[in-house]
Amino acid sequence: MKLPDTQNERDIRNVALKRVGVRSLTYPWQIREQSGSWQATVASLSLSVDLSAHHKGTHMSRFLEALENRGTSYDLAHFRGLAGDLLSQLQSEWAQAIATFSFFQRRHAPVSKASGFLDYQVTWRVEAARGCDPESRVTVAVPVATLCPCSKAISERGAHNQRGHATLSVEFEGDLWIEELIEMVEGSASSPLYPILKRPDEKFVTEAAYDNPVFVEDLVRNIALRCRADERILWYAVEAENFESIHNHNAFAHVEEKK
Amino acid sequence: MKLPDTQNERDIRNVALKRVGVRSLTYPWQIREQSGSWQATVASLSLSVDLSAHHKGTHMSRFLEALENRGTSYDLAHFRGLAGDLLSQLQSEWAQAIATFSFFQRRHAPVSKASGFLDYQVTWRVEAARGCDPESRVTVAVPVATLCPCSKAISERGAHNQRGHATLSVEFEGDLWIEELIEMVEGSASSPLYPILKRPDEKFVTEAAYDNPVFVEDLVRNIALRCRADERILWYAVEAENFESIHNHNAFAHVEEKK
Amino acid sequence: MKLPDTQNERDIRNVALKRVGVRSLTYPWQIREQSGSWQATVASLSLSVDLSAHHKGTHMSRFLEALENRGTSYDLAHFRGLAGDLLSQLQSEWAQAIATFSFFQRRHAPVSKASGFLDYQVTWRVEAARGCDPESRVTVAVPVATLCPCSKAISERGAHNQRGHATLSVEFEGDLWIEELIEMVEGSASSPLYPILKRPDEKFVTEAAYDNPVFVEDLVRNIALRCRADERILWYAVEAENFESIHNHNAFAHVEEKK
Amino acid sequence: MKLPDTQNERDIRNVALKRVGVRSLTYPWQIREQSGSWQATVASLSLSVDLSAHHKGTHMSRFLEALENRGTSYDLAHFRGLAGDLLSQLQSEWAQAIATFSFFQRRHAPVSKASGFLDYQVTWRVEAARGCDPESRVTVAVPVATLCPCSKAISERGAHNQRGHATLSVEFEGDLWIEELIEMVEGSASSPLYPILKRPDEKFVTEAAYDNPVFVEDLVRNIALRCRADERILWYAVEAENFESIHNHNAFAHVEEKK
Repeated sequence: MKLPDTQNERDIRNVALKRVGVRSLTYPWQIREQSGSWQATVASLSLSVDLSAHHKGTHMSRFLEALENRGTSYDLAHFRGLAGDLLSQLQSEWAQAIATFSFFQRRHAPVSKASGFLDYQVTWRVEAARGCDPESRVTVAVPVATLCPCSKAISERGAHNQRGHATLSVEFEGDLWIEELIEMVEGSASSPLYPILKRPDEKFVTEAAYDNPVFVEDLVRNIALRCRADERILWYAVEAENFESIHNHNAFAHVEEKK
Repeated sequence: MKLPDTQNERDIRNVALKRVGVRSLTYPWQIREQSGSWQATVASLSLSVDLSAHHKGTHMSRFLEALENRGTSYDLAHFRGLAGDLLSQLQSEWAQAIATFSFFQRRHAPVSKASGFLDYQVTWRVEAARGCDPESRVTVAVPVATLCPCSKAISERGAHNQRGHATLSVEFEGDLWIEELIEMVEGSASSPLYPILKRPDEKFVTEAAYDNPVFVEDLVRNIALRCRADERILWYAVEAENFESIHNHNAFAHVEEKK
Repeated sequence: MKLPDTQNERDIRNVALKRVGVRSLTYPWQIREQSGSWQATVASLSLSVDLSAHHKGTHMSRFLEALENRGTSYDLAHFRGLAGDLLSQLQSEWAQAIATFSFFQRRHAPVSKASGFLDYQVTWRVEAARGCDPESRVTVAVPVATLCPCSKAISERGAHNQRGHATLSVEFEGDLWIEELIEMVEGSASSPLYPILKRPDEKFVTEAAYDNPVFVEDLVRNIALRCRADERILWYAVEAENFESIHNHNAFAHVEEKK
Repeated sequence: MKLPDTQNERDIRNVALKRVGVRSLTYPWQIREQSGSWQATVASLSLSVDLSAHHKGTHMSRFLEALENRGTSYDLAHFRGLAGDLLSQLQSEWAQAIATFSFFQRRHAPVSKASGFLDYQVTWRVEAARGCDPESRVTVAVPVATLCPCSKAISERGAHNQRGHATLSVEFEGDLWIEELIEMVEGSASSPLYPILKRPDEKFVTEAAYDNPVFVEDLVRNIALRCRADERILWYAVEAENFESIHNHNAFAHVEEKK
């Protein structure tokens, strides 16, 4: 039986598409850690290509076939290869692959050393154009604690503080690990977060945050300074958002720089 | 043209359905305030009825027709009427109507009196059975600030605090307004939240929260005491969740009581 | 009592911020309709300004004050004014105001004419730089039905179809109403959606969709053609996403053009 | 240094708490498959205990310690043990453990046999009371395709169809695997979903769905019949929700039965 191939028909509307593809596709993945070990997680994927003006449609099943062919164990280099596969298997001039996944790190409480897992959200974005090297961007979203310098300065006791998310995106040359990016963010906040805190730990974290107040502006600037100091980083963007404990809205700040 | 009525066919599987209906239906509504004024908001609706074992399907369009017939201006009594309408128009023995909407209150900063709107999530749930009075439940989700008593007690300076949500559900007799429920929750936390805080306000709120630490357990118990003291309330449930500023997980507590 | 003004301190890190502000702020608004009437809704707001390298922080409460001063009744021109207010009241060189809100239209079933409300998500984004005219972008997200041309062509009976969202963003000169943008999208799909469909309507919609199959690629191209034909539109972007009824992932397409 | 133990203070409000604990805690887990293999995933956890009226607070860090002690490899029996651990380590009378995780199954297209992963959401809920056997409930949320019998019956061509979610919860004795529950749901819909469909597969799925129309009511009834026929199942609840392709709201149905 010969089935019609509607996607392959000629389109006469003269509208080239920047992107066509699949999204919200969930796959079980292993991610390479800096240590060389592999950690298991769940990835949400977006895969797309451009489409020339004269093609009616793309062949969506090929995105899944390309994904299947790459297996489920990834470091960034292997993921860059997936974008390249899309270029060839979908006969396109441009391809984009985005993966977002939870990344886990074991974190030890500062005094008791009790440990558990803390989760971070990581996004890899690779764009490949025919005949060029793929361009990669890595983003980590790191939950942190921020304590308000103004609240501390004006108040006789206490200071409002809250959980916030700082999101660091980088383009870089050479090797730069997720673990390094997380450290750049956590070291820029009033305090990192911890899975387990016993009372001596909670005392430590409370006082450390009080001694190290940061506005949402300070948080992004502190991270920016670390990005400037790292020669591997060619471009960075930092966005921080505080879930203000005194308001029902959030405060945010954003900076980006091409070095 | 006579179209087949598939829903009206006889079902032989002998499975009566507890609920069948529509959900995630969005409508522009006006809600009656305690003051007698009306405030505009957007409601998300779930409307359902039971279905006897011998009916193949319900007539979904009738839910929308019943909703249209009731108009868009509601107090709880008018919403109770909607559940009654479903009973008759869908020829069912039982009906449920749930509406969730943002409810706004103007809030004044404690020192400067600068004011803006604060938003709360309100849910009305009405269940009607043929021949009985409909049963109503009102739920308000109130954002508040909580400051940790343990962190304050063990630390030489500061105390971790955060935004939390306290959700109070009540069944009652007589009149009980959304505004009263919000007040019961806000008065039970370390501090209410505010849309605008100038520096003298921020000092006030920071110190007030520090002087009034509450665990998530305290928050639900404080609200429970207020519910016990209000003779109109026949049943209540309180759930509080703190977006802990020192962890990437939340703490929660729950209590409910039939008086 | 003179309180310290921490935000006004001099910053020495030499990191100018592109954006700092507030977000996830919810307000009850009235939106001007093309008819001249006002419809009530709930808006979620993001307000931000740039921050020079030598300022430690912005004064977050001023965003709320600017918002309060503008009132709660908006058309796009009035919202453009809000971005201008931020420029002056926060003494910045650049300001951005984003509002997202549900927009309701009464929709009549094609045969029975039974009517109810359908909701669309609208986003206004205005960016203002000192000494320039503010730039505005309007985005509407429209739910539609799409029926797969390939599935229809290869199958002896039936064709898979699904709900999708098409999101049209435009920059334009002159007047261009939300209502017009919605029409451009709904007229480009296999069928618009309806709140109420009686059986003769459901027959009509089922057959109309079957007679008018569109890929996600077709949907964005059809909308693009309408944007090209409208001389008021200077730039447009279209993104469509189908919640595929045969997969657990979505198909999407994107096109944008500066005319 | 002896730190105060605020949680251990005596509470005089006389409000016993039904639940207090932690929630939105994310951990990397391995889940035992029916085949005996282990699959890696990410679990979101809620752990809670009751709290007697005279205790001011629970010790939240112990939830994390109990979790750490159990490791990261789970079948339902091992997860039941976690609820038991909470009873003893938090000195409570009642404990609840809830885990929600993605569960992956390789799915082969019906004609080409091309395969990829499909993801399902699974929830384990265990409640343990001192001196009793823990009670377990397993829930699977399965994405399926549903084609409307009414639309098919009244239309000369085509029939609206859409993605839906059917959620089956069971309490049972003996062994009952996630894989078996998924099969009970997928076999009750118009068609299961697939990660990869080539054109001959798409023809097969389109025609199969057209030949097997089900209302949302039919879907829950079909699943109910399978639950009735399985002697291991003591109680079941089924909820199905269709993301209607002709409306911007969803249709849903619910049935539950204690056998």
